[in-house]
Amino acid sequence: MSQPSTHVIAIGNAIVDVMAPCADSLIEQLGLVRGGMTLVDTARAQELYDAMGPAREISGGSAANTLAGLAALGSKCAFIGQVADDQLGEVFAHDIRAGGISFATRPRSAEPPTARCLIFVTPDGQRTMNTYLGASQYLPAAALDEAAIADAGILYLEGYLWDPEEPRAAMRRAISAARNAGRKVAFTLSDAFVISRHGDDFRALIAAGEIDILFANHLELAALTGHKDFHAGIDQLKAKVPLLVVTRGELGAVAATGGELFDVPAEPVAKVVDTTGAGDLFAAGFLHAHVEGRSVTDCLTLGAVCAAEIISHYGARPEADLRELAARRLG
Amino acid sequence: MSQPSTHVIAIGNAIVDVMAPCADSLIEQLGLVRGGMTLVDTARAQELYDAMGPAREISGGSAANTLAGLAALGSKCAFIGQVADDQLGEVFAHDIRAGGISFATRPRSAEPPTARCLIFVTPDGQRTMNTYLGASQYLPAAALDEAAIADAGILYLEGYLWDPEEPRAAMRRAISAARNAGRKVAFTLSDAFVISRHGDDFRALIAAGEIDILFANHLELAALTGHKDFHAGIDQLKAKVPLLVVTRGELGAVAATGGELFDVPAEPVAKVVDTTGAGDLFAAGFLHAHVEGRSVTDCLTLGAVCAAEIISHYGARPEADLRELAARRLG
Repeated sequence: MSQPSTHVIAIGNAIVDVMAPCADSLIEQLGLVRGGMTLVDTARAQELYDAMGPAREISGGSAANTLAGLAALGSKCAFIGQVADDQLGEVFAHDIRAGGISFATRPRSAEPPTARCLIFVTPDGQRTMNTYLGASQYLPAAALDEAAIADAGILYLEGYLWDPEEPRAAMRRAISAARNAGRKVAFTLSDAFVISRHGDDFRALIAAGEIDILFANHLELAALTGHKDFHAGIDQLKAKVPLLVVTRGELGAVAATGGELFDVPAEPVAKVVDTTGAGDLFAAGFLHAHVEGRSVTDCLTLGAVCAAEIISHYGARPEADLRELAARRLG
Repeated sequence: MSQPSTHVIAIGNAIVDVMAPCADSLIEQLGLVRGGMTLVDTARAQELYDAMGPAREISGGSAANTLAGLAALGSKCAFIGQVADDQLGEVFAHDIRAGGISFATRPRSAEPPTARCLIFVTPDGQRTMNTYLGASQYLPAAALDEAAIADAGILYLEGYLWDPEEPRAAMRRAISAARNAGRKVAFTLSDAFVISRHGDDFRALIAAGEIDILFANHLELAALTGHKDFHAGIDQLKAKVPLLVVTRGELGAVAATGGELFDVPAEPVAKVVDTTGAGDLFAAGFLHAHVEGRSVTDCLTLGAVCAAEIISHYGARPEADLRELAARRLG
């Protein structure tokens, strides 16, 4: 097995976030699932956009956000995801490439347009996401560059992309390509509602030993394992996944690996402005330290540092110099 | 003359700002006019976008920013400006309407696309703007709703829009419509380089008594009058304009009216993040207090409060509750 020339290659939704602050009452009024991610069709997306205040657009997408963090920390990254040949597609492609990430998936010229996520941010900083998948759901297996996957140390996949059929097939094929090349597969469960739809698939992948590194938050852990008790959930999964990483918001994060349990507290944040991307950037920090061969505790700590940075401002792409934050915290 | 049902109607560029932080060295490397506004064509816009880091998109446009501030303060506003029938056009239209501003100009279906401004923000918070005018330069005089102009207390115009021919003709026609209806005309000079191109037109408008309220910054005042000395410039203009308002950055702002001179200091700002929109929001605060019939000093103070808010974050659209800030400061 040759030395990989890319640290992490990811497959994910290629989404532009459309974000606006909103009053708590609007969440109820619009019948939104507070704190969750709901898929919306064109008509519902228009209805929600009409109800949204003045907004800002910032590139997003869970795995893409993770890569943005990884690249900012110095990891070499590549992204696979489907945009349309339109202005939001150009915005997404610009932002990911400007972050130093290789992105070669060709834009799709047919309808629908590039994916967007309408994000309502309540005064407590909680984000409520409504995703219009658009072009993103049509990522074809043919768009995979299997040589690039074989040439990356870690293949990173987001659970969100398990909903649409074509990308799901593409991800299954990517897992095979990575495993055949002797690479690691990392998977993030993304959302408890995604697990309610695809939990059987995820459990089967885990049981088959296809997942080397699994990221989840405490709600997703509960949804996947059926255990409301955090530690019972960890106990059930830890034997099946070589490296299990579970975040639990302000309670910090836990990793289970090699029969041992590690945990770190959350990093202090002056004011939580917008929680969008907290899990994505946690994964970025964790994976970057992992790629660097650091201790599990360092991996968790850098995850917590990056999550703290992202929730202190609007948007799920890093604004502060993550490399400097990492150097200051880990040395 | 009937009571106007709209406080301020504005004609301006309909632009989406594309903003990213950048190192001072990049400004030189790209040959940009630091702190200025430069018009760019498609090729140059692409070149600059390629050189720009990961960005965010926030609706902009000078007069549109001013209306966003006015509407946030409680003034009733309407906007006239040209977007294309594309995604950035939808973003612009959404944001302005979501701010409570009436916007009825129909999107243009032909090329070019909606205007964008590529804004490089250096570590000192200074913005360097590169505007691709796109659809904005094709605002036809036919798009003017003269009844709406006659029904607004103040017609507000931006000097930036004097460059392209069609909007210039539209603005001339709008000035006539407003004056025929006995309304006031407010004009912002926008940029010293715009004055180098159109100073003769501006001086002629002023000499003809077409401008009731003139907004400028100290650089524009110098460019228009030829006086490097601030007070010499004020002295030259104050007799020709019923209400002259000049901002001077951290030195505060001055108004000359009715033979008197008023001045206020700048409001303190913890950290200048991005100066984009400082003048636009100053005009918003000033005009809102003016519409409310407040003293000139109160008008200047509210201008300074709104300018301070806008430079404390990215983007030229207000984030804080301006009404609350106004109430706290002016009572």
